[in-house]
Amino acid sequence: MARFAVRMEVDLPADMDADARADLLAREKAWSQQWQRSGEWVSIWRCVGEYANLSIFEVRDNEQLHEILWGLPLFPYMTMTVTPLATHPSDVHA
Amino acid sequence: MARFAVRMEVDLPADMDADARADLLAREKAWSQQWQRSGEWVSIWRCVGEYANLSIFEVRDNEQLHEILWGLPLFPYMTMTVTPLATHPSDVHA
Amino acid sequence: MARFAVRMEVDLPADMDADARADLLAREKAWSQQWQRSGEWVSIWRCVGEYANLSIFEVRDNEQLHEILWGLPLFPYMTMTVTPLATHPSDVHA
Amino acid sequence: MARFAVRMEVDLPADMDADARADLLAREKAWSQQWQRSGEWVSIWRCVGEYANLSIFEVRDNEQLHEILWGLPLFPYMTMTVTPLATHPSDVHA
Amino acid sequence: MARFAVRMEVDLPADMDADARADLLAREKAWSQQWQRSGEWVSIWRCVGEYANLSIFEVRDNEQLHEILWGLPLFPYMTMTVTPLATHPSDVHA
Amino acid sequence: MARFAVRMEVDLPADMDADARADLLAREKAWSQQWQRSGEWVSIWRCVGEYANLSIFEVRDNEQLHEILWGLPLFPYMTMTVTPLATHPSDVHA
Amino acid sequence: MARFAVRMEVDLPADMDADARADLLAREKAWSQQWQRSGEWVSIWRCVGEYANLSIFEVRDNEQLHEILWGLPLFPYMTMTVTPLATHPSDVHA
Amino acid sequence: MARFAVRMEVDLPADMDADARADLLAREKAWSQQWQRSGEWVSIWRCVGEYANLSIFEVRDNEQLHEILWGLPLFPYMTMTVTPLATHPSDVHA
Amino acid sequence: MARFAVRMEVDLPADMDADARADLLAREKAWSQQWQRSGEWVSIWRCVGEYANLSIFEVRDNEQLHEILWGLPLFPYMTMTVTPLATHPSDVHA
Amino acid sequence: MARFAVRMEVDLPADMDADARADLLAREKAWSQQWQRSGEWVSIWRCVGEYANLSIFEVRDNEQLHEILWGLPLFPYMTMTVTPLATHPSDVHA
Repeated sequence: MARFAVRMEVDLPADMDADARADLLAREKAWSQQWQRSGEWVSIWRCVGEYANLSIFEVRDNEQLHEILWGLPLFPYMTMTVTPLATHPSDVHA
Repeated sequence: MARFAVRMEVDLPADMDADARADLLAREKAWSQQWQRSGEWVSIWRCVGEYANLSIFEVRDNEQLHEILWGLPLFPYMTMTVTPLATHPSDVHA
Repeated sequence: MARFAVRMEVDLPADMDADARADLLAREKAWSQQWQRSGEWVSIWRCVGEYANLSIFEVRDNEQLHEILWGLPLFPYMTMTVTPLATHPSDVHA
Repeated sequence: MARFAVRMEVDLPADMDADARADLLAREKAWSQQWQRSGEWVSIWRCVGEYANLSIFEVRDNEQLHEILWGLPLFPYMTMTVTPLATHPSDVHA
Repeated sequence: MARFAVRMEVDLPADMDADARADLLAREKAWSQQWQRSGEWVSIWRCVGEYANLSIFEVRDNEQLHEILWGLPLFPYMTMTVTPLATHPSDVHA
Repeated sequence: MARFAVRMEVDLPADMDADARADLLAREKAWSQQWQRSGEWVSIWRCVGEYANLSIFEVRDNEQLHEILWGLPLFPYMTMTVTPLATHPSDVHA
Repeated sequence: MARFAVRMEVDLPADMDADARADLLAREKAWSQQWQRSGEWVSIWRCVGEYANLSIFEVRDNEQLHEILWGLPLFPYMTMTVTPLATHPSDVHA
Repeated sequence: MARFAVRMEVDLPADMDADARADLLAREKAWSQQWQRSGEWVSIWRCVGEYANLSIFEVRDNEQLHEILWGLPLFPYMTMTVTPLATHPSDVHA
Repeated sequence: MARFAVRMEVDLPADMDADARADLLAREKAWSQQWQRSGEWVSIWRCVGEYANLSIFEVRDNEQLHEILWGLPLFPYMTMTVTPLATHPSDVHA
Repeated sequence: MARFAVRMEVDLPADMDADARADLLAREKAWSQQWQRSGEWVSIWRCVGEYANLSIFEVRDNEQLHEILWGLPLFPYMTMTVTPLATHPSDVHA
């Protein structure tokens, strides 16, 4: 199991067709929630004042993380920052 | 309750006295674990290949977050990046 | 209560339809003034020479700040920088 | 009267003599409070998790702002970002 | 009186209609020269190899500087960097 | 197995004692070669004109990569950039 | 023979015609694989969470590297970072 | 005589009409070669893997350099970095 | 004649000997004023809130500008940004 | 033969012993001039107002370029930017 923090910034064209946008966002939500329910997408938070989120993933390996991120319907509109994480020696839960 | 992500980068002088360093790190660990046990410092992960951590805090307010961070024995050697978080509309746990 | 500084930079397309633009700006002003009157949006200043403002907010929590910012009609055209603030020990008014 | 936002970041040497440091900080506080009391230094807030503040000044002119900032005992240890401000057309108080 | 340096970078769409462009540039020149003649816009130089200028302003206050810059017909296509200036102690003319 | 690219930049103090430096570099080389021989540190190249290298790792997981990097005798003098890698769909060898 | 690391970031317009896009990607893959088979394009990896790759080239000289990169059908949509590499003194294989 | 290094980065729209593009590039080449033949544009090299060049100019003064660069048919699509050069004390040819 | 804007940022060690510092600053002032009086150093302004100045030079050529700047007693403590200037087509004085 | 542009920025400690400094600079000059005379170090220019140079190299390969740069007595005090160059299609001399 490998843990990663991923920050995703979204930049949708302001003049996108409203129906296309609604459909895109619905598929985005479904893809995200499917991976939350199966346990790989552990946490997702909104960054205040930004069209961006910070997420924590626990995946099998790098390949699986890329599969999840690449499959996001919003991927072509996103900028990702991926940070691999390890156990911290001060962690009381580790 | 307010949630924040904080990235802390540490830059200790390479020629620091070994005893002073060990004492500093012991006090740092104690301060961090005290706030983990009381529940405000929810998670702490090591950023792979860096003397840095990514942490999640759930605090009463901005004042309390600053009190925790400012009180870190390593604070004078740290660069912090603080990101306020809110609930994400796709979060299955919210 | 939590205090934040927010810098908002606006990047409107130069060829936007004049009526759509006027409508957008009128709704932006109304949204801003509603939150100024209810007390959460404490100050707003123009940054000289920029289509940008610096604002101070006093909100209930992170969730409320995000609700205010996300609801701005200009939000899709804005880049935000959010800085959480705390009391300063030299503040004569604190 | 001219209004400015100033962000001040402090970088004190970690090994500074404790007495010299205490003296420096006491003189810094006195200088700041003198200008707060005379009205030019309108607000000062701590940036959460940083040895930094965000301040609002209302001064006679650029010369006076520079005199106040240059006179800060911590000036040699500070990095300043100065933003000139003007009235915002959406300001309900203007 | 307050002195400022302003660097203005222009980014016009390469496919702009030639007449619209000529009209825009003529109005830009007129606005600039009106403020040069009235004395607020003291100097304007082209930055070599860039569609950019460096200008010096001597204005009544921040409000007037913003009025001049905001009124530029090219303002929507410009990125500005504003630097407030003060007297230098080595200036032989001061 | 997880593959990573790591760029390591070294910043040694120019006035370091020659013996301490030679000892440090010898231990650095031994640590690197031990992990090259066991297979985790797959490639190491010098970046031309820089005291820096680009390396490829194939490790068990994030924890092992951090263990290898953190254990480098030069770690306190290094800045690391870690890039997680996955299979590329155009790779003829995959 | 000269070795280089090249990081290629792709930024395709989100509204590109699906057929034109498929044709472009097929020609991109063919060009890449031709140079992989002839030995100059030694390795290609996907950067996790990004539309980007990291590649290693072993070419005759700078001219040949530029010919390969410039000839990529995706070149007009790419940002390249080219790092010349040399043998590292700790390399157990050199 | 004044010497300058100029780095020119080109960003042409990927969907530009093929004939317009060919005409633009032909005029660009003619303008560059005219100034190479008259001696002001001393050297021009392609930056490997980039739609960019590094050039050396020896011109009468700043005005002439700006005239040459501003006159480039590709100027509206270029980002320039201009570095004024002087004789180096270690130059064996000076 | 060639015109340049130069921004000079000063970073003096905070613990410099007071006499050495006073001597350095006196020599700096003398060098600056000598070139102001001979006409090459046309203007010098303090950047508000910074240990920095913005200066305008009118020199014979690049060599002379470098001679003036390199000769500054504070040169080893300065970071310079040099911008070559040309006549602007909107300049009413040109 | 491979051509490169290299920008070298020097950052010598301001309090370096005068003799050590003079010796270092003499050895630097000798090393540079030896490679200028043998033809690999084709050009060297001072960047105006900076302790920096821009140089052009024509070397056998990446290994030789690194050998020359790494061997510079000032190397531990330098930051290098290396740009591989190729023939430009508009070059009248190519």
